[in-house]
Amino acid sequence: MLKVGVIGVGTVGSAVVEILEANKDMITARAGREVVVRRGVVRSLSKARAIDIALSTDPYDVVNDPEIDIVVELMGGVEGPFDVVKKALENGKAVVTANKALLAYHRYELQERAGEIAFEYEASVAGGIPIINALRDGLSANHIERITGIMNGTCNYMLTKMTDEGVDFNAILKESQALGYAEADPTFDIGGFDAAHKLLILASIAYGIDAKPEDILIEGIESVTQEDIAFAKEFGYAVKLLAIAKRDGDEVELRVHAALINRDEMIAKIDGVMNGVSVIGDCVGETLYYGPGAGGDATASAVVANIIDIARSGGKRSPMLGYNTPLEHGLKLRAPQAIVSKYYLRIRVEDRPGVLAQITQLFGEYAISIETMLQRPSEGGYANLLFSTHEAVEGNMQEVLVRLESLAFVASAPVMIRIV
Amino acid sequence: MLKVGVIGVGTVGSAVVEILEANKDMITARAGREVVVRRGVVRSLSKARAIDIALSTDPYDVVNDPEIDIVVELMGGVEGPFDVVKKALENGKAVVTANKALLAYHRYELQERAGEIAFEYEASVAGGIPIINALRDGLSANHIERITGIMNGTCNYMLTKMTDEGVDFNAILKESQALGYAEADPTFDIGGFDAAHKLLILASIAYGIDAKPEDILIEGIESVTQEDIAFAKEFGYAVKLLAIAKRDGDEVELRVHAALINRDEMIAKIDGVMNGVSVIGDCVGETLYYGPGAGGDATASAVVANIIDIARSGGKRSPMLGYNTPLEHGLKLRAPQAIVSKYYLRIRVEDRPGVLAQITQLFGEYAISIETMLQRPSEGGYANLLFSTHEAVEGNMQEVLVRLESLAFVASAPVMIRIV
Repeated sequence: MLKVGVIGVGTVGSAVVEILEANKDMITARAGREVVVRRGVVRSLSKARAIDIALSTDPYDVVNDPEIDIVVELMGGVEGPFDVVKKALENGKAVVTANKALLAYHRYELQERAGEIAFEYEASVAGGIPIINALRDGLSANHIERITGIMNGTCNYMLTKMTDEGVDFNAILKESQALGYAEADPTFDIGGFDAAHKLLILASIAYGIDAKPEDILIEGIESVTQEDIAFAKEFGYAVKLLAIAKRDGDEVELRVHAALINRDEMIAKIDGVMNGVSVIGDCVGETLYYGPGAGGDATASAVVANIIDIARSGGKRSPMLGYNTPLEHGLKLRAPQAIVSKYYLRIRVEDRPGVLAQITQLFGEYAISIETMLQRPSEGGYANLLFSTHEAVEGNMQEVLVRLESLAFVASAPVMIRIV
Repeated sequence: MLKVGVIGVGTVGSAVVEILEANKDMITARAGREVVVRRGVVRSLSKARAIDIALSTDPYDVVNDPEIDIVVELMGGVEGPFDVVKKALENGKAVVTANKALLAYHRYELQERAGEIAFEYEASVAGGIPIINALRDGLSANHIERITGIMNGTCNYMLTKMTDEGVDFNAILKESQALGYAEADPTFDIGGFDAAHKLLILASIAYGIDAKPEDILIEGIESVTQEDIAFAKEFGYAVKLLAIAKRDGDEVELRVHAALINRDEMIAKIDGVMNGVSVIGDCVGETLYYGPGAGGDATASAVVANIIDIARSGGKRSPMLGYNTPLEHGLKLRAPQAIVSKYYLRIRVEDRPGVLAQITQLFGEYAISIETMLQRPSEGGYANLLFSTHEAVEGNMQEVLVRLESLAFVASAPVMIRIV
């Protein structure tokens, strides 16, 4: 019998307890032994709960209990769980976590401390989609060339609504908050940080890259307007928040940002709150993994899969791609300024002669070449200039944006969206 | 060092040899040991080959070589490879096969003979997509409620072309044959048999169902016309060849047929030669796996992933869902006649009074109720009647089709496509 302690019995934690109970016979057969939840940790003991396990409010009650074999960490936060997980590993307990923020900051240190003890986190990326399993096992014959993920359901829901119903960002944000798809403070989701945490986890598996959120390019979807979506539609693009990891020689670029992506790409067809991850391997080509990126049962499905894995392997860690494979240690993070991309730009300008010439001359100075251009009238003597460019260097584009904003005839900060 | 023998060094076999060589350092790191191809078996030694391994024409040279640890079976056929694989297992060698026909007929017997020896076949279903890995590991917390696959690239390419370009079945078939997407004798693909083999493999993993191709409903795409595609478009459907495994109580239905499927479903968006498998689990909900279903490198990616797995686990079999899990042994195959579905019907009739009344009365006798109906004029005094129905029983629908064909005013055999 394998004894589990669940730290954080909220939506996901309760679902873990319920699934282990509801699918008990099947899980026993698949795990090769019985799996029982023995302890749970909650913030407050006064709240009524549907599940029937011994509860306390102190994570260390679980972590220091010699009976417990597997600690499931679902606390949230970074430094608190970091200490808890370290102690659990020190006490020889296998750990399963869904905590992407913890992993974004401390995955290498925890992996190292784990050594041969199982330390698993399938649920931390894209909820119920077994993407870590695919990277580590299913695609193990491949060098990974590129990962492109839609890994934040809030952003994808909002962008889908903006596209399908023509509603403005702020209206959709309010609706998403009312529906529970967006938090009261939505920055973590719509600013791209949630997706970035997940990207860093995938990058460590595929490339052995040890970067922190502050090292990589992270932008959100706050500046996307109906004007941009209309442009995207006209030129055959969808607008998505993408998390991208891309290998180029011995460098890996990692970035999260709103993007225009060809509507015919499979990943561009993922709408609403759903998540999806496209992986390009050097042998297999493109495979894509789609499913629910959040929700108690979906996330718990991944947590329980890890528990079953651990039961099968007797508590030892699974072999990992990336981490502990020397070949992948030679890769370096590419500086965000060195990223090469195509760009879409929207610039609101005074509608008078000479403006376009000055802008295009500025582009020329920074080796930015225009692919398409549209001019649309705006109110009050202004015009909107919409450009898409050929490939250019991120650092140059950033300087152009600063220079553009300083021009007298430019009415407001230009909007830039990368084209992938 | 792990020594591999490859029986069948054709497109896939050569790719296996090449990947093991090209990605050698990475594979050694991931497998925890060096993997070397020592022997190959070919039909004829006179053909020039780019790879440099010892070749012979006798599979038993590999199977009986005490040096060989893993036999990769890529021969094609059923009974020949069955004997070869049995002998390999008897000699204690791990086996990796991509042979779906072999597995459709003999997977249970081979699995039983394998016992604790690894017997793996990721490449047999949907080529490079790690769908078996997802079912066995990633989704292990779930009872599988339904699997819906687009697993034949030839059919999907043809149906996509018919839909996008309005070309007729026969013209597309010729084009597909010229491009190498369809065989000279295309029956195996367009008749649904290839997809059925793959479905049986997935059904054995998810449900422990031991059925043979002749036990299940298998139809192809031969009768799909532009008329049907126009109807599908008008009512928001895509036309796809689907392989479906669906659990209902203690029964599982298995079927392969052309289907009308809501265009908004993710799987309906998979076009061209690509494959995809949607899996609905009781905890996770729907996840979908997309990628190349054929091709040397993509298929070899799955073969090599199995080889790496075997190296990691020291030649022992991975724990399997379905097979060897008692809970899943209680399920029975549902008789094809008992399947319940919605249906689309196209009936070419003489354009005269009373015809529609007789048809709808016949429907009534068999408890078939109409959801939509369209009448379209045809040439020479005929009309095409297009119906979609509410849910009805397959056996009843089959009888209706026979009765319809016998009616004097029905000009040709009615066409039926299931709606899923």
